[in-house]
Amino acid sequence: MAKELLVIKIGGTEGVNFDFLCLEIAEMVTQRSKIIVVHGGSKEANVLGEKVGHPAKFITSPEGFTSRYTDSETMEIFSMAVKGKVNTSIVTKLQKFGVNAFGLSGIDGQFMIAVRKKAIQSVENGKRKIIRDDFSGKIENVNVSILNWLLEMNIVPVIAPLAVSTEGEGLNVDADRVAAMVARAMHADGLMLFTAVKGLYRDFPNEKTWIPKLKQNELPNALQYAQGRMKKKILSAQEALAGGVRRVAIADGRGDRPIANAFAGQATWIGVE
Amino acid sequence: MAKELLVIKIGGTEGVNFDFLCLEIAEMVTQRSKIIVVHGGSKEANVLGEKVGHPAKFITSPEGFTSRYTDSETMEIFSMAVKGKVNTSIVTKLQKFGVNAFGLSGIDGQFMIAVRKKAIQSVENGKRKIIRDDFSGKIENVNVSILNWLLEMNIVPVIAPLAVSTEGEGLNVDADRVAAMVARAMHADGLMLFTAVKGLYRDFPNEKTWIPKLKQNELPNALQYAQGRMKKKILSAQEALAGGVRRVAIADGRGDRPIANAFAGQATWIGVE
Repeated sequence: MAKELLVIKIGGTEGVNFDFLCLEIAEMVTQRSKIIVVHGGSKEANVLGEKVGHPAKFITSPEGFTSRYTDSETMEIFSMAVKGKVNTSIVTKLQKFGVNAFGLSGIDGQFMIAVRKKAIQSVENGKRKIIRDDFSGKIENVNVSILNWLLEMNIVPVIAPLAVSTEGEGLNVDADRVAAMVARAMHADGLMLFTAVKGLYRDFPNEKTWIPKLKQNELPNALQYAQGRMKKKILSAQEALAGGVRRVAIADGRGDRPIANAFAGQATWIGVE
Repeated sequence: MAKELLVIKIGGTEGVNFDFLCLEIAEMVTQRSKIIVVHGGSKEANVLGEKVGHPAKFITSPEGFTSRYTDSETMEIFSMAVKGKVNTSIVTKLQKFGVNAFGLSGIDGQFMIAVRKKAIQSVENGKRKIIRDDFSGKIENVNVSILNWLLEMNIVPVIAPLAVSTEGEGLNVDADRVAAMVARAMHADGLMLFTAVKGLYRDFPNEKTWIPKLKQNELPNALQYAQGRMKKKILSAQEALAGGVRRVAIADGRGDRPIANAFAGQATWIGVE
């Protein structure tokens, strides 16, 4: 029987426990799964930005989506923190837990091409403004050949959320949506997005409104009540399911055995049927 | 006819012009050569160290070799600057000049294994001391499969000087010696080390003592009069030639058309015969 292929996104938010996640990924790869890891790095990018005197700024779109304002200096900081530090750290952790791993970003071999957002609408203190010097983008194409080669060699690909634009510029891309696009392109069996909450809430942070299961056709509605960065996770779930991935989890990456717990129901599972 | 394979090391020293080197590498790859790039990043690591309040320190061995003192915080800074920034910058430059390129370090896929220097002798103000918390090492093994795959796909591998220890730790390794070990392992036709001087001098910086040609058996003697970081380049040339690489250049990476100029004789060429 072919091994199942999972794409697992490790959030870069405060609270997500990389050690527990890497330990379980290593166990699963040894036993029964092929896994591709995608990670964020927002916390580390913020820390480095503070240290070098160029603190992070965030943009809120008129639709309520939040993203990092990435001028060229921020792009360098982002690349140093996310590719240089976080990616290397995940790769060495997996290796210490006994599986081989390989770090790459979408710039490497141009394997993820994104379209740069040349004019971004931002809402600041109720006023709209247009930002034109932003180096962020939206993934348009994933070339799977390097990922297939690594998986065939029993090496876990660890993907940092950077891509290359059609004009050859390095871009910051949203890691949740990278994970969704990679899961689609690789025809993955499942996509799991680990973050520092238990999943989706109808009315965050009211514990009683936590949602264990959601159908694909409920996602447009969920996009309305999801708050902050959770909106992008819902969008990513939509993109993955629309592209043939059968199930998506938004799960808690803070504790021990996060993957087993998610499979045991401690996550918001979103599926086709 | 098989294309010649060159390993080209781009020094990370002040003065080396990455644009000119990348432009010429892209032209050569389009025309007649397979090229593997290895780079340093000392200047950028120093700049980042200053910015984050952990400035670089250097160790001088009793034999006169200089190396970066790499405690665990320096290792993180080194990885951010060298892998996150310099490597990404070279990869995108090559892509802008029309060839595909892929950034990796020896940690990725564990393709370069190094032995950690667990106790380093250092001479400070005439006194010897032993340093035990240093994360640097010496390459022992290069697994060429990823490099071969990339070259077959017409992608230029761009290697950052990090390796993984036999205990799974990330290590800072000397980029000149990485270039030599990669050239050996890949049976390269030539190795070119670009830096911010014209080559080797009998009595640096006296222009009249510049050496255009050197035989392999003259290297032990050159190791005596070479100064500072030039010693490691001589050692790298020795390692490459001993491993079957036919010729090594120590060349000037500061000006226009650095590779053509080196082939035209503006470099110290070291050969077997």
